Amino acid sequence: MKVSEIAELLRGNPAGDAERQIQGVAALETAGPTELAYVESLRALGPAAASRAGCLLVPEGVSLPGHTTIAVPHPKLALIRAAEALHPASSPPPGIHPTAVVARDAQVAPDCSVGANVVIESGATVGAGTRLCPGVFLGMGVRVGEHCTLHPRVTVYPGSQIGDRVILHAGVVIGSDGFGYVFAEGRQVKFPQLGKIVIEDDVEIGSNTTLDRGSLGATVIGRGTKIDNLVQIAHNVKIGRHCIIVSQTGISGSTEVGDYVVMAGQVGIGEHVRIEDRVVIGGQAGVLPGKIVRSGSIIWGTPSRPMSEFKKTLARLARLDALAEKVKALAQQVEKRSP
Amino acid sequence: MKVSEIAELLRGNPAGDAERQIQGVAALETAGPTELAYVESLRALGPAAASRAGCLLVPEGVSLPGHTTIAVPHPKLALIRAAEALHPASSPPPGIHPTAVVARDAQVAPDCSVGANVVIESGATVGAGTRLCPGVFLGMGVRVGEHCTLHPRVTVYPGSQIGDRVILHAGVVIGSDGFGYVFAEGRQVKFPQLGKIVIEDDVEIGSNTTLDRGSLGATVIGRGTKIDNLVQIAHNVKIGRHCIIVSQTGISGSTEVGDYVVMAGQVGIGEHVRIEDRVVIGGQAGVLPGKIVRSGSIIWGTPSRPMSEFKKTLARLARLDALAEKVKALAQQVEKRSP
Amino acid sequence: MKVSEIAELLRGNPAGDAERQIQGVAALETAGPTELAYVESLRALGPAAASRAGCLLVPEGVSLPGHTTIAVPHPKLALIRAAEALHPASSPPPGIHPTAVVARDAQVAPDCSVGANVVIESGATVGAGTRLCPGVFLGMGVRVGEHCTLHPRVTVYPGSQIGDRVILHAGVVIGSDGFGYVFAEGRQVKFPQLGKIVIEDDVEIGSNTTLDRGSLGATVIGRGTKIDNLVQIAHNVKIGRHCIIVSQTGISGSTEVGDYVVMAGQVGIGEHVRIEDRVVIGGQAGVLPGKIVRSGSIIWGTPSRPMSEFKKTLARLARLDALAEKVKALAQQVEKRSP
Repeated sequence: MKVSEIAELLRGNPAGDAERQIQGVAALETAGPTELAYVESLRALGPAAASRAGCLLVPEGVSLPGHTTIAVPHPKLALIRAAEALHPASSPPPGIHPTAVVARDAQVAPDCSVGANVVIESGATVGAGTRLCPGVFLGMGVRVGEHCTLHPRVTVYPGSQIGDRVILHAGVVIGSDGFGYVFAEGRQVKFPQLGKIVIEDDVEIGSNTTLDRGSLGATVIGRGTKIDNLVQIAHNVKIGRHCIIVSQTGISGSTEVGDYVVMAGQVGIGEHVRIEDRVVIGGQAGVLPGKIVRSGSIIWGTPSRPMSEFKKTLARLARLDALAEKVKALAQQVEKRSP
Repeated sequence: MKVSEIAELLRGNPAGDAERQIQGVAALETAGPTELAYVESLRALGPAAASRAGCLLVPEGVSLPGHTTIAVPHPKLALIRAAEALHPASSPPPGIHPTAVVARDAQVAPDCSVGANVVIESGATVGAGTRLCPGVFLGMGVRVGEHCTLHPRVTVYPGSQIGDRVILHAGVVIGSDGFGYVFAEGRQVKFPQLGKIVIEDDVEIGSNTTLDRGSLGATVIGRGTKIDNLVQIAHNVKIGRHCIIVSQTGISGSTEVGDYVVMAGQVGIGEHVRIEDRVVIGGQAGVLPGKIVRSGSIIWGTPSRPMSEFKKTLARLARLDALAEKVKALAQQVEKRSP
Repeated sequence: MKVSEIAELLRGNPAGDAERQIQGVAALETAGPTELAYVESLRALGPAAASRAGCLLVPEGVSLPGHTTIAVPHPKLALIRAAEALHPASSPPPGIHPTAVVARDAQVAPDCSVGANVVIESGATVGAGTRLCPGVFLGMGVRVGEHCTLHPRVTVYPGSQIGDRVILHAGVVIGSDGFGYVFAEGRQVKFPQLGKIVIEDDVEIGSNTTLDRGSLGATVIGRGTKIDNLVQIAHNVKIGRHCIIVSQTGISGSTEVGDYVVMAGQVGIGEHVRIEDRVVIGGQAGVLPGKIVRSGSIIWGTPSRPMSEFKKTLARLARLDALAEKVKALAQQVEKRSP
């Protein structure tokens, strides 16, 4: 694409060589003369000036003499749009690979791509334009929506429901038994795990993440929520819409999470917690069972506290030695003056 | 089943409409007129009174006028028994799927169900009534006992031993190489990982959990122990009987764990630790290498301490600001009075 | 092998019955009369004296009367060498299993072993002597070097590059999409994940570990680095040579790690961190985003600090109660003396 064509696509303002040909997107530091890069903010103007990129997406009002640029309101978002045009996703031809094992009464839309060694059990349905990569397993009665991509070796237990445009990365497990036992007569007796799991539209889930189905009720992942690799979602958890859950976070049974919540990596959430909308949780934080975290809170630490308070405690801790010294000096002073 | 039949099965005491037909179990909040739910304790009497469940399992001595109930000593346990009767586990027909690859000298009991794309290598044995779901891999010489369920894509490395009635969820890896190296001549030299792994009877292991085999000795998971999703068990670890190990916990090499131990989520245990019987470990706690945790202890924090002590430290921390203020005031007071 | 032959292989100094036949290696505590064990240091002399091992590898200068021994400079390393001779790795016969699905234009070296249900997509290449166990998936254009072992169900996304002598354990995912979104118009918009991933020679990666490819640049795992089970490596991470990364550690996007770095279990590293050579990080430590950790540092805690400083803080914390008591007493003393 020409720079002028990209500018038009992005409704941006070009400057420099509008006829230049651009073949792909790249990082600011490594982009070459046929590549497009973006300048996130004014802080990146130094690397931007030194960049060899054929074209730079810059914030409106920024000029970079000697570079071909396109000024846009949100350069990173503009790069995403440009990348979709420059690197269209390759989709495999539709059809069912001869090694796939598809139950006679499963319903697979005719334009689906079903890879080698895929197994689709009885009563499962797969919507239009969905791609099942090699080794995917769909259990009895599973429903997968339209235009989904299930990467290799994704396992979907019987009865699970997956919406439209869902992306599941390799090794994801959807709908396994929750972890519930009653200790009786000297042993752990398994509680029934008969519930279901619903993954709503536009969810993306990272590699080897595991999500259990409900025990009696349902586990629900809300529309547009994005979950990273190696995350654990326990039974009966309800997660709202457009949340971000970073890698290795674990959410215990029956916890409810609102919309637009962000959890950093390795966060642990106890059982029966309620996390309201727009909460932000710092990395490795631990939220104790039964807690309610109010809308918009920013929390950190184990047990989790408001971020500002926790930081104050950390600062105080760093000065604990000084405090101890002060008390010691004070004691001596008092001692000296005793009659 | 009629309410009267369920009451008989549970040896419970029915009240209300004993002829009512019950078709399944459900949660108290969502159960309908043909469903059975349970009331865990007196604290749940409010939701119980509002429940639309066709029948409620209640603690002995509790009456709920207007509801059909069955009084039992342990309602949650009773629900488990009832669920087994109302939702009998569906087992697939025995037989070996034509796409399964089974070594000629492997021994698979005739009533096993072996799914699509299962691979069973030379010398492996599979006991009566065991179900291998699609994509399971059993390496050379693996032994799997009777009435086990190995969910899709479970991988069992050569030589591993699995007892009876074991449940392994999707993506579990049994018997991979332990993580041991000797640093020599500027590089990490791999220590031999030649040992074995034994999973005893009635163990259940969650999705994508990994268990390494012993380096020279054995890794052992004791009878009746339950392990959640994404847990890591390192080489030579010995875990006792009827333990509960919650998701994302990691246990380092050569650590020994007693019977009836409970570890909450994201716990980390160092190498060569000894955890005695009935220890309880709080979420995200870290036990340092070489420690001995005495029988019955309840511990928390990193480094882990007795729970009560750790909570006291947390409370003290929360008052650290006040302490610093007090010292400051004291210093001023002393200063003022100086002659 | 005779003891004399093993001594010759190890260039060690035998004492006792040099004609004795040794069939394998074992742990000091469990070794029998035909097995070889090692005595790591003088601290193990007690168990060594009690050992029933047919032969013991001991540090130079150590004599164990009544035992057959071989004295070597580094007994543990010597055991590794002996184990390689006594337990030669069994390699399956070369060939492609009839159930494997190999693209016509994929290049697989003739002496490779390709197991059942392996899928190799178009343009992929596999070097000499490499073993692909059942269910391995290699995406389009993947390059795997020579003498690698990919255990069952390893998934390699399109375009990933893997060096020579690499070992990937069951369920490893190489090259999945990084976790990057821009929040715009009320939803999370996926940032392009178009980069690549390079796994250099002699790397070993544990079961169910996940490694994302770069977003625009590359993710790189340096030569000789060893990664344990269930570790998460995010997009654009660069890891140096001969590092040790223990189980359940997570490294966030664009972080750079030097050579010979050691991370204990469950460590969390934020984004854009720089960890220089030979840094050691204690278990469960958390390194905040953007930090630089200087060469040779030993750090621990969240947020991570120098180990010695963090230990001092812990010790001070343990005496916090005593400090508070002291302040209380001091206040009373001051009060009493007021005029």
